[in-house]
Amino acid sequence: MSLIVQKYGGSSVGSVARIHAVAEQIAKLAGQGNQVAVVVSAMGDTTDRLVELAREIAPDPDLREMDALLATGEMVSTALLAMALRRLGLKARSWNAMQLPIETTSHAGRARIARIDARQLKQDLESGIVPIVAGFQGRAANGDLTTIGRGGSDTTAVALAVVLEADECQILTDVDGVYTTDPRMVPEARRLDRVSFEEMLELAGQGSRVLHLRCVEFAARYGMKLRVLSSVEPGSGTLICQEDRKVEAPVVSGIAFNRDEAAITVARVPHHPGVAHAILKPISRAAIDVDMIVVNAPREERVDFSYTVHRDDYEKALELTRSATADYPGATVEGDDRVAKLSVVGSGMRTHAGVATQLFETLAMESINVRLVSTSEIKISVLVSEKDLERAVRALHRAYGLERAPSS
Amino acid sequence: MSLIVQKYGGSSVGSVARIHAVAEQIAKLAGQGNQVAVVVSAMGDTTDRLVELAREIAPDPDLREMDALLATGEMVSTALLAMALRRLGLKARSWNAMQLPIETTSHAGRARIARIDARQLKQDLESGIVPIVAGFQGRAANGDLTTIGRGGSDTTAVALAVVLEADECQILTDVDGVYTTDPRMVPEARRLDRVSFEEMLELAGQGSRVLHLRCVEFAARYGMKLRVLSSVEPGSGTLICQEDRKVEAPVVSGIAFNRDEAAITVARVPHHPGVAHAILKPISRAAIDVDMIVVNAPREERVDFSYTVHRDDYEKALELTRSATADYPGATVEGDDRVAKLSVVGSGMRTHAGVATQLFETLAMESINVRLVSTSEIKISVLVSEKDLERAVRALHRAYGLERAPSS
Repeated sequence: MSLIVQKYGGSSVGSVARIHAVAEQIAKLAGQGNQVAVVVSAMGDTTDRLVELAREIAPDPDLREMDALLATGEMVSTALLAMALRRLGLKARSWNAMQLPIETTSHAGRARIARIDARQLKQDLESGIVPIVAGFQGRAANGDLTTIGRGGSDTTAVALAVVLEADECQILTDVDGVYTTDPRMVPEARRLDRVSFEEMLELAGQGSRVLHLRCVEFAARYGMKLRVLSSVEPGSGTLICQEDRKVEAPVVSGIAFNRDEAAITVARVPHHPGVAHAILKPISRAAIDVDMIVVNAPREERVDFSYTVHRDDYEKALELTRSATADYPGATVEGDDRVAKLSVVGSGMRTHAGVATQLFETLAMESINVRLVSTSEIKISVLVSEKDLERAVRALHRAYGLERAPSS
Repeated sequence: MSLIVQKYGGSSVGSVARIHAVAEQIAKLAGQGNQVAVVVSAMGDTTDRLVELAREIAPDPDLREMDALLATGEMVSTALLAMALRRLGLKARSWNAMQLPIETTSHAGRARIARIDARQLKQDLESGIVPIVAGFQGRAANGDLTTIGRGGSDTTAVALAVVLEADECQILTDVDGVYTTDPRMVPEARRLDRVSFEEMLELAGQGSRVLHLRCVEFAARYGMKLRVLSSVEPGSGTLICQEDRKVEAPVVSGIAFNRDEAAITVARVPHHPGVAHAILKPISRAAIDVDMIVVNAPREERVDFSYTVHRDDYEKALELTRSATADYPGATVEGDDRVAKLSVVGSGMRTHAGVATQLFETLAMESINVRLVSTSEIKISVLVSEKDLERAVRALHRAYGLERAPSS
């Protein structure tokens, strides 16, 4: 008998029919003798609709009230799923964040889970009851309802799995696992049976939409096995867990990409301490997230400084950087919001040379210009023109032989 | 400075525009130097839609989960109203039943308020914050969300007013007060400036839809002044309060009616103890509410026994009564589901004779047959054919001179 925490996203519970299907899936798992606790998101586009309603009431709605409003979405789906399970003859019970409670910090809209009181959930599991927990929400110390940010239900599920000491945390979604790259772009893309936390972190951070970065970080920190599964089709999905040191890791596990990038380059700024700070400070003050930062080697006491931001923030960032560098004579600011980032990820890079060489060779063969490069221990990211992205991903998928399962 | 609890119903907060209008109304009251606490229902038909959704999931949904589901409706409207008030520059804060808490008994779907912890609300009021409280919901001792039955938000408002020692509890609705009878039926119907709790109890119990019986009972028990007001048009509405003994009460204050009645008569049953019980026991076992019960004087050791039920329960009740009386030879069971009840209510009846005489005289002049009669200290109810109801109400409204304000 295993103890499994399952999380179903908004599209998985988006209609009465889908809720019944989810109930059947839970009943099957429980029928196999497992203890099951479930975390659910709000139905379909409920959260978006509530946000829209709030914006109609006030252009800049109060954050505490926004959280109180949004938390209702998950309460609705927990109650409905519990009803659907009871209809199948299972014992089930809905739980919201105030009832357990799930305690969080008090940062409305982006709270962090501080503590989960799982006593009532443990009692449920011991009594053969399937507890259905509202994801995404929490309770601050002062009693306010909070939410933990978009995609927060994944994090709720992992936190719950850790507290319950579950054997596995399953994230059920509309894809059947983690792929070597997006199968919509590369038909030969292959589902990975297993991927390490580190690889998944890089994939999630680099634009793979399967799991949220925060949920993977959380699972990695506590060594909680994560499994990505389809909520529609049967299958074993992809297991995300600690790297197995006994097996040689594949050199490259997957290719992630992100089309929403925009790049800004300040050319020929003085090469002295404080310049990077002078450029980035107004950006962070404007609450704009910076992704890649690349500084080239200085020449003649001058240096080129580049960074990327989300495409929505491009105009604002460009304007701020122009002001920030107006005092540097000779410096020029240029930008491009038609760029995309591509990242090759693999734990095997640590011990295998030549991954970067192969990358540049492949892109050169395709006559694709690389605009920026940044690397981490198990990842190489390059910025290319958006029009070249698809060709680049396909060529690299082939070059690294990702369509074939590793012989190990 | 007064402390006023206002309650806005579902239609009053049924749209973004209506919520803004309600916020303006609250802001005006607060701007006049009053402390205001607000209770709101779910927006428009939210509760009905949630019930429908639950029924699609399970034909007989679990009651605990139904309450968890329905309670979300009021949480949504509290958050939105708080946002709308803050947009007007007021300080406002939403509260759900778990946060205060509002403690109730554990009867899912029909819980009763046991205790309201108003400390946080008092702090709000002292800090110039308008607290917006979710009506209709509560928290059972075991932490479950509960609901206190349809129309429960009125009861929440009165309970809150009592606990806060408010000067007045205002029920804002789509009518501008309590009328001598339904103005849609009798154009000369007059709004009452003032009505006693007892009269209002009889009017509410006899089909007047303005206030729920339970809310009036609650207000009467604690002597909390109630005021029914329009949420759209300005006006002083109708004040419901303790009877003023110094002023002579009007003989008749109003005429209530209820079209949803059905009558069943068992004729010629043996006149001995236990017969009434034998007839009514299967009805109450089937959870059918009985309204009027009339037993005629016995003749030849036989008696006629009549009762009324809601029209929806008619077929079932008829069948149960036929079985229950099958063993009484000579007894016959007859029924009519095209009947309506009309009640003449007034505190002055206590001291004025002739109200009943005038009633029977008026109905006789109109050739309207009276099928059943039952009386209380300040009320006479008669059952008539549904087709005669409108004529009967109009004739009696005229006969009692209800279109004229009392000279006092």
